[in-house]
Amino acid sequence: MRLSQSFSKTVKSVSEELESANARLLTQGGYIHQEIAGVYSYLPLGLRVLNKIEAIVRSEMDKIGSEVLLSSLAPKANWETTGRLESVDVLFKASGGNQLSQEKNSTEYVLNSTHEEIITPLVQSFVQSYKDLPVAAYQIQTKFRNEARAKSGLMRGREFRMKDLYSFHVSEADLNAFYEKAKESYQAIFAALGLGADTFITYASGGDFTTAYSHEFQTLLANGEDTIYLDRATGVAYNKEVVTDEDAKKLGVDFSKMEIIRASEVGNIFPLGLKFSKAFDFSYLDENGAKQPVYMGCYGIGTSRLMGVIAEKFADEKGLVWPEPIAPFAYHLITLHGEGTEAESAKIYDTLGADNVLWDDRKDKGAGEMFGDADLLGIPVQLIVSPRNLAKNAVEVKSRGGKFESFMVPLEEVSGLAEKIVKAS
Amino acid sequence: MRLSQSFSKTVKSVSEELESANARLLTQGGYIHQEIAGVYSYLPLGLRVLNKIEAIVRSEMDKIGSEVLLSSLAPKANWETTGRLESVDVLFKASGGNQLSQEKNSTEYVLNSTHEEIITPLVQSFVQSYKDLPVAAYQIQTKFRNEARAKSGLMRGREFRMKDLYSFHVSEADLNAFYEKAKESYQAIFAALGLGADTFITYASGGDFTTAYSHEFQTLLANGEDTIYLDRATGVAYNKEVVTDEDAKKLGVDFSKMEIIRASEVGNIFPLGLKFSKAFDFSYLDENGAKQPVYMGCYGIGTSRLMGVIAEKFADEKGLVWPEPIAPFAYHLITLHGEGTEAESAKIYDTLGADNVLWDDRKDKGAGEMFGDADLLGIPVQLIVSPRNLAKNAVEVKSRGGKFESFMVPLEEVSGLAEKIVKAS
Repeated sequence: MRLSQSFSKTVKSVSEELESANARLLTQGGYIHQEIAGVYSYLPLGLRVLNKIEAIVRSEMDKIGSEVLLSSLAPKANWETTGRLESVDVLFKASGGNQLSQEKNSTEYVLNSTHEEIITPLVQSFVQSYKDLPVAAYQIQTKFRNEARAKSGLMRGREFRMKDLYSFHVSEADLNAFYEKAKESYQAIFAALGLGADTFITYASGGDFTTAYSHEFQTLLANGEDTIYLDRATGVAYNKEVVTDEDAKKLGVDFSKMEIIRASEVGNIFPLGLKFSKAFDFSYLDENGAKQPVYMGCYGIGTSRLMGVIAEKFADEKGLVWPEPIAPFAYHLITLHGEGTEAESAKIYDTLGADNVLWDDRKDKGAGEMFGDADLLGIPVQLIVSPRNLAKNAVEVKSRGGKFESFMVPLEEVSGLAEKIVKAS
Repeated sequence: MRLSQSFSKTVKSVSEELESANARLLTQGGYIHQEIAGVYSYLPLGLRVLNKIEAIVRSEMDKIGSEVLLSSLAPKANWETTGRLESVDVLFKASGGNQLSQEKNSTEYVLNSTHEEIITPLVQSFVQSYKDLPVAAYQIQTKFRNEARAKSGLMRGREFRMKDLYSFHVSEADLNAFYEKAKESYQAIFAALGLGADTFITYASGGDFTTAYSHEFQTLLANGEDTIYLDRATGVAYNKEVVTDEDAKKLGVDFSKMEIIRASEVGNIFPLGLKFSKAFDFSYLDENGAKQPVYMGCYGIGTSRLMGVIAEKFADEKGLVWPEPIAPFAYHLITLHGEGTEAESAKIYDTLGADNVLWDDRKDKGAGEMFGDADLLGIPVQLIVSPRNLAKNAVEVKSRGGKFESFMVPLEEVSGLAEKIVKAS
């Protein structure tokens, strides 16, 4: 992509209204645009990051479930059935806009903040006997929650992107086995996103059904909204706000001997048990033709939230620093003005591919602004084409995150750049 | 994908509430599930079709615009600015759900049915001078319209998927030039979807700004909601409900000499002119530093609507018949019971690839039901593995849509099947 033709521009100063580091940085970089507090549009650079995060999540989910796309609107009756129409205090409702349409259709709908109320009766319609179970289905889509406060940028939105997986089982044992598979799947996802080393399975509240605990995945983050007790040796953590001294006894751990550190939740897995299947009277016939209740689990990852966490976690004083797997582009090509730089840059752009390179080909910007923007945008590898470098018949290769020492690559070896970077790192 | 492990099942009879042919067929096939009239969930098979349609649309759009993802929620003020808060009678509004959250945040938002109110101020924030124009950006996302009646299945939804492209220009001439490019892009899309021969550029209403006409793309459909005057020789059509005798004079055509035929709108392109830029006071500075108004165009394709149109258009009395480019799978592998059929089918499944084959490996179904389901699901090529065929060391290859005469392919030549089908067609 050529920066001269980019939809967005970097922004020098952003509104004081944007309080969180991730919203400020992503807005300055032209990745996102706030429409309402907690409601963002994704501009081309931001959508590329979001798509890469969601592709990683999808590739793991496809191993354990079928992808669906559930409706955003739900009949209120479904939420009444589960008793959550009143208990979920962030629930949006939608209804016809003006006098005219209200006369024609005045029905009020729920704008789903989560999809148990849709997926449970849907799966129920296809399941008669034990032969039809287990079932696991997931989706990646926009969700709505009318948060009272929405000042954490992408980390807590009124409108946000989420992957939600739901599983349905003949027994608690089968649910538990799948639950462990989901855990592994989540670990693979966070590793692939570049968060593996700093993300910990965290004991959280037990929920409505089981004496076992549900789990969150917490990523260490200086401004994270949670505090966890962490045992780095075992990689196990406990959400400080949730666990009690009694839990410590039950779990056989001593919180006082553990590290206390700030973190941000990046995923959760939750054994729902019979809560929703009971509400919808969802049962199956076992081998003997007897009615049995269906066990359920749900498993969430906020993909836009992850984008905010990653932006904030790796940023430095100069701007964003994207992990390679989710960077909008692999290379940021900077063309300083001078003889031959544009022509050589065009060759490099073609060699590496427009889909891999963000090319700063702007003719009205000086070196200072170009370097500043490159650091702000946080693309992992910067390539500098300058008259001085061209005199040496070479391009300078720089790591935005300090993964390798800067080096020069001869122009005729640009096609082998990826390999050289791996070696240098 | 193995049918024995499929999320959905074919459904013998569907609710009388589903009035449209597309909703009935897609529900029977387990492609979609109605949640509310006009609101559907996409099950794995349906999501595959929708994704393929959207990938075709995206690949053409990427040639003329940047992809973004705009927010679904909008501040009411934006819609007040354009005067459409009251005039768009299908507009949904969303607000906090219960007593608790209403106390915290009682703001009412608009749930966008279209995105001029978001994209215009967004592009405005990045555009100062003529150097920053033209800009073209598109998105593919869920839209909301509180239709009074929603009885046409995917063809008119309260919640639906849509591609919307918006363009911004320094002059009417530049807008017109882009408008022609968009037209070509649309024609390429409908051709790629398998609708090329039956889709016509149709003169529709002139809109608010220009004496020129806006255009719809109309696909011939027996139960289409529109009627058009069609001149097949030139490929030009006129929306009968919109054009007048005066238009005929202006355009120099004689409607009485044209074919009158039913069709369904599959896309529209619209020169917005200055309507929205005036509302938002969106101007740019020209070469002389003088303020000039920004010209806009908008270009829509309902991707879920397209799925409904295509489903309905090609269906026959046995069920769905998907065009190859958007079929959920290329092959429907039917394993009749008998010695060796399962093992040979497994080999074929591996050879052709799980992503290309829907394998009916159900052990509790007879041949009749399997053939019936294959015809209902409408996957273009059926492969029949039966004891009788295996005795000949071959598989039977059948076209669902009658594109070629059935033939036998030797087991060892299954890897070259695609080529043989092209030859036979």
